Amino acid sequence: MLGSCLEAVRRCAPLIHCITNYVTVNDVANLLLACGARPIMADDPGEAEEITIGCHGLTVNLGTLSPRTVPSMLACGAAANRLAHPAVLDPVGVGGSTLRRNTARTLLQDVRFSAIRANCSEIKALLHQASPFSGVDALPVDQVQEDNLPQAIDFIKEAARRLGTILAVTGPIDLVSDGTRCCIIRNGRAEMGKVTGTGCQLSALVCAYLSSCPQHPLQAVTAAVCAMGVAGELAWEHMAPGDGNATYRNRILDAVYHLDGDVLERRARYEIQ
Amino acid sequence: MLGSCLEAVRRCAPLIHCITNYVTVNDVANLLLACGARPIMADDPGEAEEITIGCHGLTVNLGTLSPRTVPSMLACGAAANRLAHPAVLDPVGVGGSTLRRNTARTLLQDVRFSAIRANCSEIKALLHQASPFSGVDALPVDQVQEDNLPQAIDFIKEAARRLGTILAVTGPIDLVSDGTRCCIIRNGRAEMGKVTGTGCQLSALVCAYLSSCPQHPLQAVTAAVCAMGVAGELAWEHMAPGDGNATYRNRILDAVYHLDGDVLERRARYEIQ
Amino acid sequence: MLGSCLEAVRRCAPLIHCITNYVTVNDVANLLLACGARPIMADDPGEAEEITIGCHGLTVNLGTLSPRTVPSMLACGAAANRLAHPAVLDPVGVGGSTLRRNTARTLLQDVRFSAIRANCSEIKALLHQASPFSGVDALPVDQVQEDNLPQAIDFIKEAARRLGTILAVTGPIDLVSDGTRCCIIRNGRAEMGKVTGTGCQLSALVCAYLSSCPQHPLQAVTAAVCAMGVAGELAWEHMAPGDGNATYRNRILDAVYHLDGDVLERRARYEIQ
Repeated sequence: MLGSCLEAVRRCAPLIHCITNYVTVNDVANLLLACGARPIMADDPGEAEEITIGCHGLTVNLGTLSPRTVPSMLACGAAANRLAHPAVLDPVGVGGSTLRRNTARTLLQDVRFSAIRANCSEIKALLHQASPFSGVDALPVDQVQEDNLPQAIDFIKEAARRLGTILAVTGPIDLVSDGTRCCIIRNGRAEMGKVTGTGCQLSALVCAYLSSCPQHPLQAVTAAVCAMGVAGELAWEHMAPGDGNATYRNRILDAVYHLDGDVLERRARYEIQ
Repeated sequence: MLGSCLEAVRRCAPLIHCITNYVTVNDVANLLLACGARPIMADDPGEAEEITIGCHGLTVNLGTLSPRTVPSMLACGAAANRLAHPAVLDPVGVGGSTLRRNTARTLLQDVRFSAIRANCSEIKALLHQASPFSGVDALPVDQVQEDNLPQAIDFIKEAARRLGTILAVTGPIDLVSDGTRCCIIRNGRAEMGKVTGTGCQLSALVCAYLSSCPQHPLQAVTAAVCAMGVAGELAWEHMAPGDGNATYRNRILDAVYHLDGDVLERRARYEIQ
Repeated sequence: MLGSCLEAVRRCAPLIHCITNYVTVNDVANLLLACGARPIMADDPGEAEEITIGCHGLTVNLGTLSPRTVPSMLACGAAANRLAHPAVLDPVGVGGSTLRRNTARTLLQDVRFSAIRANCSEIKALLHQASPFSGVDALPVDQVQEDNLPQAIDFIKEAARRLGTILAVTGPIDLVSDGTRCCIIRNGRAEMGKVTGTGCQLSALVCAYLSSCPQHPLQAVTAAVCAMGVAGELAWEHMAPGDGNATYRNRILDAVYHLDGDVLERRARYEIQ
């Protein structure tokens, strides 16, 4: 099932419109190419909606937010909804500023997102549960780990219901929930947090998978999260002495480039509750 | 001849002003450093013309277009024309939005470009031939291949005459024409399309070559296109099992860094019609 | 002493707010992660000050300057001053345009920078000593070398006094001065100039070190400059035949990732005058 989602992306080669931050945009583009999708970045209100209409999916990322692009996000979100294209939100650092919180609130009011990919702190901020700011990383107390797993599952299911979307919450353990079911994923490596943009990349990957497997959105999101985690593991196995986070960044993209359905099936470690 | 163009770039170390998209800008900067040129990026109307005046060449790239930078493109284009500096246009995804089409039209009216580097779909869009949008890549039906080569050569020659510039059209086969002659180039690899920004990089390389070999513009553009293709081939020869598009990206830049005139002469595969 | 600064960064994991150019921003983020700090990029006046307040240090970089972000730079600089957080200025290409010169002048009037990291041409431009524009690199005549070292030391000390800050001037020989003392650093390699953004990265590294070692700012800046130079040397030792500036870029980040206090102490080559 997960493997067939991966292969559907390679077969469909969906064109993914990304309104995304300028920090990690190049890696997002190469990630989409690596998985078999095709990226296009455009954020200006003068063209963004037109671009969305020509694409198969939309990713909206709140990093390096500027008020100039908020109208683009809204117009593109509406267009994606109208066309029944998947729309994915990555609320980067949403707890960090009023601008990001307000933008997220407006987006959640006006756009139906197929999925939101975030860390646990960001989900809490989306739900207006005050959370002390810690940059773009999750607060330790907000990370999903074995010892708080049952509570985390309940929290994520409830959050998915309240937000009316599929949530993909990444951390030491990743959780994907549509409000009813919850997939618990134990792939990936902690060192991925030392590479900027692995979260942004995953959000775009989620969009590519949703575009190519629209009938099974929960599985599509789960497959994307597993694929990124497996790529992180395979990439780590290719690391040589002296390799650091820059080489790891490249190795992760390389692993996504070579990943096939069989390997994804064999290495994905997930259960459903 | 091609080799002496490459060496002229290393000797002149031209300063190239890039008004370019934020997706691939870092690779464009490293590509210019790799070939022996020097990059400077600046896009604000408050400084762009002043920067162009201090440089030896200008590259204008329409990816991630914003109306804020269009006046910069026009002012810098005019300044480059006034100073007889080469100006290169890369109409990224010009078929994808009215904003890009209108910007391209205005630029073509007001600026004399020394060269335009694009794929075949983008050239068609520049000529107002409608073509269904396919992101920033060429439509398969628009690619220059062996079986449509004679028609493609005629089309590109005619397009170069109509646009009044040298066209460098990249795809499975690359064509460079000044409207009279057409160079047919069979370097490069299909896998370069899996690395974001190889086209943007080539456009900047074309500008560096034109800046350093102003007496022979057709040869300069041909040399740049061959150099990028040869770099793509050399880079591929350095790929190890498990290497994917991220490593290939680095290997292409590394190959440009080491490429010398002799290797370029020996490996360039082109003919003139 | 230098080694303990490096270790303090790994222990404190300071959150560094970067208002920086879009050319090298991804490398700056990965550099901060590599050294043990955490990056956040935000440049919009609607959120920048709020972000600074939640961080431990601020880096302001004038590359790809836009008037939109100048109010952010001023507000964040004021906030950092109020909170006694280190603020670092990187006046990229400040000699190249009136906009950059005026922005630098305004910033120097309104913000107390803990350190300015620049090349010698940029320092001269900051002091309003006209210098012919040469892009973002130093003019050869402005580089600190063995044969002009005594004059350069006097110049940098005087410049640090006039600018009221610690100056880190990088080139063939690096100088760090607080106006009284001057550290002369002979680490690094010329090839680092072929990788875009090593200067931007160093400016962010300086900020991370200052955040983590606030009691000894001159040593902190010196440690950061030595660390970047040592990383450039270690990275070069890992280069294989065919590796070029793209691989070198990755290797430098990898070396920062693995650098520890002992190696920094052993390999730092500096003297104080």
